[in-house]
Amino acid sequence: MSTAAAPSTIGLYTSGGDAPGMNAAIRGAVRGALHLGLNVFGISRGYSGMIAAEIEPMGPRSVSNIIQQGGTILKTSRSAEFLTPDGRRRAFESLRAHGIEGLICIGGDGSFRGAVEFYDEFKIPTVGVPGTIDNDLYGTDLTIGYDTAVNTALDAIDRIRDTAQSHDRIFLVEVMGRHAGFIGVASGIAGGAEEILIPETPTDLDAICRRLEQRAEQHKTSLIMIVSEGDEQGGAVEIGRKLGERLGVDFRVCILGHTQRGGRPTATDRMLASRLGYEAARAIAAGEANVMVGQVNGEIVYTPLRQTFTKKKPVNHGLLDMAAVLAE
Amino acid sequence: MSTAAAPSTIGLYTSGGDAPGMNAAIRGAVRGALHLGLNVFGISRGYSGMIAAEIEPMGPRSVSNIIQQGGTILKTSRSAEFLTPDGRRRAFESLRAHGIEGLICIGGDGSFRGAVEFYDEFKIPTVGVPGTIDNDLYGTDLTIGYDTAVNTALDAIDRIRDTAQSHDRIFLVEVMGRHAGFIGVASGIAGGAEEILIPETPTDLDAICRRLEQRAEQHKTSLIMIVSEGDEQGGAVEIGRKLGERLGVDFRVCILGHTQRGGRPTATDRMLASRLGYEAARAIAAGEANVMVGQVNGEIVYTPLRQTFTKKKPVNHGLLDMAAVLAE
Amino acid sequence: MSTAAAPSTIGLYTSGGDAPGMNAAIRGAVRGALHLGLNVFGISRGYSGMIAAEIEPMGPRSVSNIIQQGGTILKTSRSAEFLTPDGRRRAFESLRAHGIEGLICIGGDGSFRGAVEFYDEFKIPTVGVPGTIDNDLYGTDLTIGYDTAVNTALDAIDRIRDTAQSHDRIFLVEVMGRHAGFIGVASGIAGGAEEILIPETPTDLDAICRRLEQRAEQHKTSLIMIVSEGDEQGGAVEIGRKLGERLGVDFRVCILGHTQRGGRPTATDRMLASRLGYEAARAIAAGEANVMVGQVNGEIVYTPLRQTFTKKKPVNHGLLDMAAVLAE
Amino acid sequence: MSTAAAPSTIGLYTSGGDAPGMNAAIRGAVRGALHLGLNVFGISRGYSGMIAAEIEPMGPRSVSNIIQQGGTILKTSRSAEFLTPDGRRRAFESLRAHGIEGLICIGGDGSFRGAVEFYDEFKIPTVGVPGTIDNDLYGTDLTIGYDTAVNTALDAIDRIRDTAQSHDRIFLVEVMGRHAGFIGVASGIAGGAEEILIPETPTDLDAICRRLEQRAEQHKTSLIMIVSEGDEQGGAVEIGRKLGERLGVDFRVCILGHTQRGGRPTATDRMLASRLGYEAARAIAAGEANVMVGQVNGEIVYTPLRQTFTKKKPVNHGLLDMAAVLAE
Repeated sequence: MSTAAAPSTIGLYTSGGDAPGMNAAIRGAVRGALHLGLNVFGISRGYSGMIAAEIEPMGPRSVSNIIQQGGTILKTSRSAEFLTPDGRRRAFESLRAHGIEGLICIGGDGSFRGAVEFYDEFKIPTVGVPGTIDNDLYGTDLTIGYDTAVNTALDAIDRIRDTAQSHDRIFLVEVMGRHAGFIGVASGIAGGAEEILIPETPTDLDAICRRLEQRAEQHKTSLIMIVSEGDEQGGAVEIGRKLGERLGVDFRVCILGHTQRGGRPTATDRMLASRLGYEAARAIAAGEANVMVGQVNGEIVYTPLRQTFTKKKPVNHGLLDMAAVLAE
Repeated sequence: MSTAAAPSTIGLYTSGGDAPGMNAAIRGAVRGALHLGLNVFGISRGYSGMIAAEIEPMGPRSVSNIIQQGGTILKTSRSAEFLTPDGRRRAFESLRAHGIEGLICIGGDGSFRGAVEFYDEFKIPTVGVPGTIDNDLYGTDLTIGYDTAVNTALDAIDRIRDTAQSHDRIFLVEVMGRHAGFIGVASGIAGGAEEILIPETPTDLDAICRRLEQRAEQHKTSLIMIVSEGDEQGGAVEIGRKLGERLGVDFRVCILGHTQRGGRPTATDRMLASRLGYEAARAIAAGEANVMVGQVNGEIVYTPLRQTFTKKKPVNHGLLDMAAVLAE
Repeated sequence: MSTAAAPSTIGLYTSGGDAPGMNAAIRGAVRGALHLGLNVFGISRGYSGMIAAEIEPMGPRSVSNIIQQGGTILKTSRSAEFLTPDGRRRAFESLRAHGIEGLICIGGDGSFRGAVEFYDEFKIPTVGVPGTIDNDLYGTDLTIGYDTAVNTALDAIDRIRDTAQSHDRIFLVEVMGRHAGFIGVASGIAGGAEEILIPETPTDLDAICRRLEQRAEQHKTSLIMIVSEGDEQGGAVEIGRKLGERLGVDFRVCILGHTQRGGRPTATDRMLASRLGYEAARAIAAGEANVMVGQVNGEIVYTPLRQTFTKKKPVNHGLLDMAAVLAE
Repeated sequence: MSTAAAPSTIGLYTSGGDAPGMNAAIRGAVRGALHLGLNVFGISRGYSGMIAAEIEPMGPRSVSNIIQQGGTILKTSRSAEFLTPDGRRRAFESLRAHGIEGLICIGGDGSFRGAVEFYDEFKIPTVGVPGTIDNDLYGTDLTIGYDTAVNTALDAIDRIRDTAQSHDRIFLVEVMGRHAGFIGVASGIAGGAEEILIPETPTDLDAICRRLEQRAEQHKTSLIMIVSEGDEQGGAVEIGRKLGERLGVDFRVCILGHTQRGGRPTATDRMLASRLGYEAARAIAAGEANVMVGQVNGEIVYTPLRQTFTKKKPVNHGLLDMAAVLAE
């Protein structure tokens, strides 16, 4: 966390997987920055557009009527070229050509890794805004898009529950989360799931089989099991196969996939995104550099960008214990 | 279509895949039948419960507060045993033991096949109510559950569109419809899909490739293609693989799966289900037998049960031509 | 219904109250017309913008990504000036200045009245597209926006039902429909309402009181009554007051109001709007004039514009009889 | 906050206005208490049912499939009788007759006032669970139902925005909050409202008029103003009248009303409710009495019941300053 001469012209980009609320964050950052007297440029398609100099000025009306839209009007991408010194050099030159002296990056861990490296090389102050449905960034209680993704998953789980109950079936529902079980835990508890399998905890298939048999004896034959895609025993298809082999029972699998990324953001995501975008503008105007703006216990907190992905945000294991009791 | 001595005691069951609106149909049939002075029994789990004599009397309060619920309170199943003469014999005995002289069956083609066979053997008058999300029954413009399924698919397509546009990606979205493209056509047109692949029309992958290349030249790089699960070229995964090999482009696949079956029914499904359930009660009270009650051009129509699955309900090819123009 | 020399340049406008699906109709009309080789201008704010010459050319990308949006990108208004000969003269001159030889008007009865008068005076061929949530136009089974409005009302009714049941209360829910009870009938039946009060049927408050007392005796104390705003006994507030005086019971009132106008259109509305917009383009290209394009029994039908508002589309009274039985 | 001999039989009730998530809290409390070996009784209709001895035992299946339902399966009411010593005496006797030694009360400030008085008189240990959409209880960051209510209001605001923009109109949207502006602030910021009027801040109509005129000069003529029902200048109707008189402009008013109370709870509300219900069971089993279980900064916190309504939870004024900037 360092402060430097505050920039008067900044660039704003979204990067990595899109997340609902990114547009609200763009709106917050643009209007916040303009209010503080900064010039604002929008950079399209993340680092790809930075390299290709897809850069346009933004005014207050550039962000009208976007707060409720999923996706990102600035588009996003994953750039292989930015991983090379030459790509970053070209990106720097694009920025310089537009007089951009500071950056606001809305994205996740991969995007922040790039930003750190870029800062190390070119010293352009960057402020990060946590935008990822996975909620796996240290330094903020919630990331932008997570609440919407959980509610989208929950809506699907509720639908699947209708069929599970009508047919007395067992469903494995795979939710997003390659490295973190946050979506799994929240949608599982809120959906009343009987089992929740996440990367952070060991998945004991034998114990699961025992519980399933126990439930079958109690004639509780309609069940929903949530599987985070990154579970160490595999995704829902693989776990369904393994359990099916042991129990000789048919498991239905539903992979929620990309539907979890899009859609109108929830109130929580719009509030959070508006606030973090706005606070990122204030941070960069105050000379902050190389930090992420997060919300912890309701307060705005700056965390060094590198820590956001090197430190691990833990899931609340107490909630999993509770979930086991509530599914009884 | 035949009329006989009207029964005074009837049984009601749901069968086959569950569909949103089945509960509204149950409510319509029960309250309609009670109003006409009939005794009503609910049979659980379709033909399985008929064989196992899982049969309970239903009163007006049995169906309170269910009109808005997905799934079916009577549960449903697919019964292998009912396919055997012995199974059907046992089912008949269950009915006789309860004094059931007529049946209302809410289900799809498989359920109606069973009903026809049962009628041929035991002459218990049966009236069918079309309950399936696939909309593939002859004798009714809409089946119960179809409108909800289309809107659920559409909601997912809208979400995926956010990501497709943010990332400039091509998505293959697989919707339900093993034998019929109704969900594919409706959700595709309503979702503004660029391609719609259904079982009823030949899928020409070469032509699709040409159109994709043309669009790429026009820089229209974010696309959504709808694939009915029963398309003759395969499901979305297989078609994605085939197209990917030809074009060297990455296709994202999203299989909507069972989420399409559940959820609160739409207004259209609740209206339709209430009406068809109610009319089924009137039909059976009037001595109708072996017919399905459907809605055609806003009017109630009786169709011999066998015709509902032997005759083919065509998709509207003109709509597909229109879709091609509108996606330009 | 008359055919004339087909225009090669057309103008498109939305008029009257906005309705979900209007954007899908705009998209259908624009892409349909361009496909047929026509030049297309978009006229902003209905007749007001026609008079003020707020007219811009539209291409295929003008209507990208709007199919899922509520409201109308062309904006709409009610114009007092167009009611005067001078206003219409100025509107005509605006059109002539842009070379516009034909019009597509998306709107309701007021908009079509204007279009008929304009046609009588200036002979510019106009094709109407029925866009109003009220569904009160003759010549089409459904108007654009109606299905969405009904589902929005239904969503509210479902929410209110939660509270009605938790508190054993009676709610009066006022839905839109100044002259027609279509929204009331559909949302009432789909919502399982115990009473449905609409302009087309006499509202007998004494009979309602008797039924309420009867239900109270049966301990059915949580009730929902739907009131169309145009009921001859008054809106929900007034009817609540009248019933409250007679029964000495407290009625809760909820007026759904403008929330019924907006929101993402349903699949049915997007399909219908896409089709009618597209068919309006085909009609005007074929030389049709002074007709509305509607959908009747699944088929495209042309109805003289004047008939759409002079002839009355009846509600289905049989459905109201059914509703009374199903609410028992 | 006091601890006593832990009860072995408890009663559970919901009281005051219903809130989405109350059922999830009931489920959490029942299954949590049963897991700890307690006997659990459900008391219907709050204090009314406590007086009338509407008390039934609850097992783990009593709360199956309710986590996703709005309202409360235990029903709720406001009891005038419980405000009298005689009423409370009778309530106590009902509890004693069932062997109930402790209570879990899910409700808001009025319910907790009753609980405190009851405890003072009869020393039955009571643990409160904050269930109210208004979020106006001290001792918890969020109350159960608040997140759902905000999202319901937001959904309505989004719909109204469609019409506001299509017609260039100003809408006053009244949201719930007789004494607190939490719903107003959150739905206003998330909805991108141009003005947010709440009870906690002075409402300066002259300043609002100046801002409206300024916006009109900037041709920003489509606006949404959020009014909490408890604003000191009046509700939306009255404020619309006052502003209309000053500016000679037409304001549209939409009162969201009871729709904000119902509906499927959001993921946040289900998580929170599950956790607080479960923790209430643990608290009462541990001998806690006369406290509310809340969640503050992610941790479970006990607050003396009386403080929850005597201490004021402040709105975040910084968010309102931000909202003013973001609406520019």
